[in-house]
Amino acid sequence: MRITPDRVIPALQWGRQYDRGKLVSDLLAAVIATVMLIPQSLAYAMLAGLPPQVGLYASILPPVGYALFGSSRVLAVGPVAVVSLLTFASLEGFAPPGSPEFIAAAIVLAALSGLILTAVGLFRLGFLANLLSHPVISGFITASAVLIAVSQLKHIAGVEAQGDSLLQMLRSLTAHLRAINPPTVIIGLVAIAFLLWARTSLQPLLARAGLSNRLSEMLSRASVMISVIVSTTVVSALGLRQLGVNVVGEVPRGLPPLALPTLDPNLWLALMPAAGLVSIVGFVESVSVARTLAARRRQRIGEDQELIGLGVANLAAAVGGGYPVSGSFSRSAINLDAGAVTPMAGVFTGAGILATTLFFTPLFYNLPQAVLAATVIVAVLSLVDIKELKRTFVYSKSDFAAAAMTIVVVLGIGVEPGIVAGVLLSIVLFVWRTSRPHMAIVGEVPGTEHFRNILRHKVITSETVLSVRVDESLYFVNARYLEDRIQALVAERPALRHLVLMCSAINFIDASGLETLKTIAGRLDAGGIEFHLSEVKGPVMDKLERSDFFEHLTGEVFLSQHAAIEKLDPAATRLKFQAC
Amino acid sequence: MRITPDRVIPALQWGRQYDRGKLVSDLLAAVIATVMLIPQSLAYAMLAGLPPQVGLYASILPPVGYALFGSSRVLAVGPVAVVSLLTFASLEGFAPPGSPEFIAAAIVLAALSGLILTAVGLFRLGFLANLLSHPVISGFITASAVLIAVSQLKHIAGVEAQGDSLLQMLRSLTAHLRAINPPTVIIGLVAIAFLLWARTSLQPLLARAGLSNRLSEMLSRASVMISVIVSTTVVSALGLRQLGVNVVGEVPRGLPPLALPTLDPNLWLALMPAAGLVSIVGFVESVSVARTLAARRRQRIGEDQELIGLGVANLAAAVGGGYPVSGSFSRSAINLDAGAVTPMAGVFTGAGILATTLFFTPLFYNLPQAVLAATVIVAVLSLVDIKELKRTFVYSKSDFAAAAMTIVVVLGIGVEPGIVAGVLLSIVLFVWRTSRPHMAIVGEVPGTEHFRNILRHKVITSETVLSVRVDESLYFVNARYLEDRIQALVAERPALRHLVLMCSAINFIDASGLETLKTIAGRLDAGGIEFHLSEVKGPVMDKLERSDFFEHLTGEVFLSQHAAIEKLDPAATRLKFQAC
Repeated sequence: MRITPDRVIPALQWGRQYDRGKLVSDLLAAVIATVMLIPQSLAYAMLAGLPPQVGLYASILPPVGYALFGSSRVLAVGPVAVVSLLTFASLEGFAPPGSPEFIAAAIVLAALSGLILTAVGLFRLGFLANLLSHPVISGFITASAVLIAVSQLKHIAGVEAQGDSLLQMLRSLTAHLRAINPPTVIIGLVAIAFLLWARTSLQPLLARAGLSNRLSEMLSRASVMISVIVSTTVVSALGLRQLGVNVVGEVPRGLPPLALPTLDPNLWLALMPAAGLVSIVGFVESVSVARTLAARRRQRIGEDQELIGLGVANLAAAVGGGYPVSGSFSRSAINLDAGAVTPMAGVFTGAGILATTLFFTPLFYNLPQAVLAATVIVAVLSLVDIKELKRTFVYSKSDFAAAAMTIVVVLGIGVEPGIVAGVLLSIVLFVWRTSRPHMAIVGEVPGTEHFRNILRHKVITSETVLSVRVDESLYFVNARYLEDRIQALVAERPALRHLVLMCSAINFIDASGLETLKTIAGRLDAGGIEFHLSEVKGPVMDKLERSDFFEHLTGEVFLSQHAAIEKLDPAATRLKFQAC
Repeated sequence: MRITPDRVIPALQWGRQYDRGKLVSDLLAAVIATVMLIPQSLAYAMLAGLPPQVGLYASILPPVGYALFGSSRVLAVGPVAVVSLLTFASLEGFAPPGSPEFIAAAIVLAALSGLILTAVGLFRLGFLANLLSHPVISGFITASAVLIAVSQLKHIAGVEAQGDSLLQMLRSLTAHLRAINPPTVIIGLVAIAFLLWARTSLQPLLARAGLSNRLSEMLSRASVMISVIVSTTVVSALGLRQLGVNVVGEVPRGLPPLALPTLDPNLWLALMPAAGLVSIVGFVESVSVARTLAARRRQRIGEDQELIGLGVANLAAAVGGGYPVSGSFSRSAINLDAGAVTPMAGVFTGAGILATTLFFTPLFYNLPQAVLAATVIVAVLSLVDIKELKRTFVYSKSDFAAAAMTIVVVLGIGVEPGIVAGVLLSIVLFVWRTSRPHMAIVGEVPGTEHFRNILRHKVITSETVLSVRVDESLYFVNARYLEDRIQALVAERPALRHLVLMCSAINFIDASGLETLKTIAGRLDAGGIEFHLSEVKGPVMDKLERSDFFEHLTGEVFLSQHAAIEKLDPAATRLKFQAC
């Protein structure tokens, strides 16, 4: 594959064909996305333990960075819930949330995460993200959503509370329950109720009122902005701030200076593991969104290109005074629905946020924190996927175990240990599963040349030839198991003259597996039984030929199990020819 | 399987049939084994940083414990080189070698290791030892042997030296080179030369002198004892101790009181990881020896029973004031050659060492340490297996990488990190290997119903049906890879109507793999291509049936790839019928 500028910078591809029609579509989508993004960016910054303006900063440059290098046409990059939670969890040990040191550390985290993602993309190591299995991701997202929702309850209650685990949070909440602020609670609950209602009922209502389906859907998505405007108005009109309702307060107008992040090597080193985790989670979330949306439009996503795009977006976040960003599912979906056709929509959204930051921040002064918390709670609750967990439980107990482990550790200890525990358990369970492979004695399905398990199918077998299929690659973890099983099978069959190991499911044989095969051949030979192989795959055969295996093999290697039986026990195949 | 006393205590089986003939055979073997064991036990105790008598103590009760519970008839249990090295490496951080605290910690290590082995055996978790792959074991043994040999050079040179890694040891040796003691060096080198010569040339010489093959072999094995007797005589006759030749010195006569090990919970907890490692290495070494020897006599080894036997032997070592023990390859081989028929031979050997400890320890006063070091060096050099490494390199680069990693870390850092690094790398490489599975487009071998890779075989293919075989189970690590590969294959073939995934090598499908299959089915459907499976194994099919997969599958599941083609593109199979 030749490396052309077009490959490295996808923006050169779509940029050349950019025209007025696309501009209009992108602009329209950007307006809707901006309206949705403003409250979200404030709320997620709060979730990450950062001042609200940092959420705005993280929404300006990152979409531009992604637009240049990312491969998805509609992915909306900026602050997202899970990565915000991870940022908070990673940094709270380094500095008090909200302090200048905390902000500086968040910028370093974004820079590190950007460097990691870009490097991984450039070295084409994107497959590493595959270590996060489907159940671990869904368990992680579900548990994070619960944790996020609970972490926001303090804003709804109008109290101080903190904690890493669910238990700590709940305990801290209960301890502060006396200090609860009634007006705040009312505002928060009304906002939650309105947002939940809007999600299910506003769109049909507007549609019934005569609006087009698409327009009514757009407007229903603006419900967050509606609640922001209404609540801000109510708070300032009634002077609720005097009654103890926490508001966003003074958000500095204008931009932070473009700057390099703090260059303290100790801090960078200490944040490295956290940055790795933020990178992998952000990437997995982002790429899942990008894939899902690309499938709807039959576009393709380049995994390594996505890494670079997201990496540059995070570097841009760091330079622009923001914090780690990722692809947002809800905003990308809106982008798609609103008709965005190129990442220019993201650039326009960034411009919208820029304008907001420069001119409109005083408008948020009286915005109650409880409404932002309500926004977060309603957004993350849609991420809790109990059905998926149930399906996983029915399908595979070990997958469910990995998901459950992730959930339990995330809720019980924290997000970082949770994801690590999930990944480790997945790998341990995989190795465990391959350690005792399924083995089947096979016979020929009458009228075919096909061999199947004698326990599941009516098949023709032979007295003198035992056909055994082992359903796993032979490697160190299961090598001895095979040895013992074959020994046991042979011990039960005194009339045996040949043993044929059907290798159709053996995808590789490592050095330990090779030793086992030699041992088996030697033992069978001692008992007067010839050892044969059949259906050995090309790559496996290539390696066997490089070893001294064939000095030990007492029998032959057959192209197919059928060919083996035909030669070793023609009587067993006669039945078939009669049928023919 | 019913649990009978015979099963739990193998000694009850062979004990009932014990007779005079067996007694004589076992006694004779025990005499020879004792003669070999005395110098080895002193030398290995020295290697472990323990006073020589601890080696003797570790040789008395453990064979009795193993005799009761072990399943091998000829395994000689006692001090061995690699476990002694591990003991030293585990304990040097806790107390100065040779100090009473060091001895107490060694006893605790034996007790812990005994408990771990017994527990693992009782819970039938013996398969855990399979995590040590063949290349990691052989790399570990080779590197340990080098480390042991180098660690003994200080005794040959008659200087003080120490270090965990090869480099540290060599540096320390060079630093002390001026203090070298010439008489010690002469004794050491002569002993090494004699032992090396005896190993290859003494037996043929004796045979030529008219002795029977067996007798001459026995006598040549006594070469260690000969060098001990000769060197001790020379040292005491010439008064070489005054010239600075280090000797074994006063070995206390009699036994330590039978006692429970120190019950300091902090010490036990701190030694836990080391005990785990000692257990797994000791077990793997021991069980390999037992298997190899059992194969020669067509006996079987019970893996879990071996664990219990070795566990009880280590508990016995702790109670008797010894240190961790394992099965010795050299002494077990001698046992076998000398005609031992039951583990009673081990009990008699224990009795022989007991007698030695009670009455003969003063005889070792003038035994030069250099001769013991020579014994160790010659014994471990036979463990260095360069040929095996070469074979591994030719056969599999990733197996070689695991072996090389183990060797480099053992030599460069130490034995414990070495084995951990080897095991981790093996697992990482295994996961990596399964992350990009081999895939083949297959066609029918003419004249058969067998399907093979179109790149390796002359086969019949179809224009409208693509048959793809994926050579790996579908699980989270490789799920996305499959998605991308199938997409690419389909993109190249506009005429395609059906895609059949031949599942003969898919041994399981986890939840992530299932998601992938659904996604592939959906995408192919969007392109007007039906998605079919063939040769799905029973256990895989059972799980698919528990999921909602068949709501997504647009095609069928065929018994065999042949059946799929016969139905989906009869024209492609016509050629075959013409040939018939």
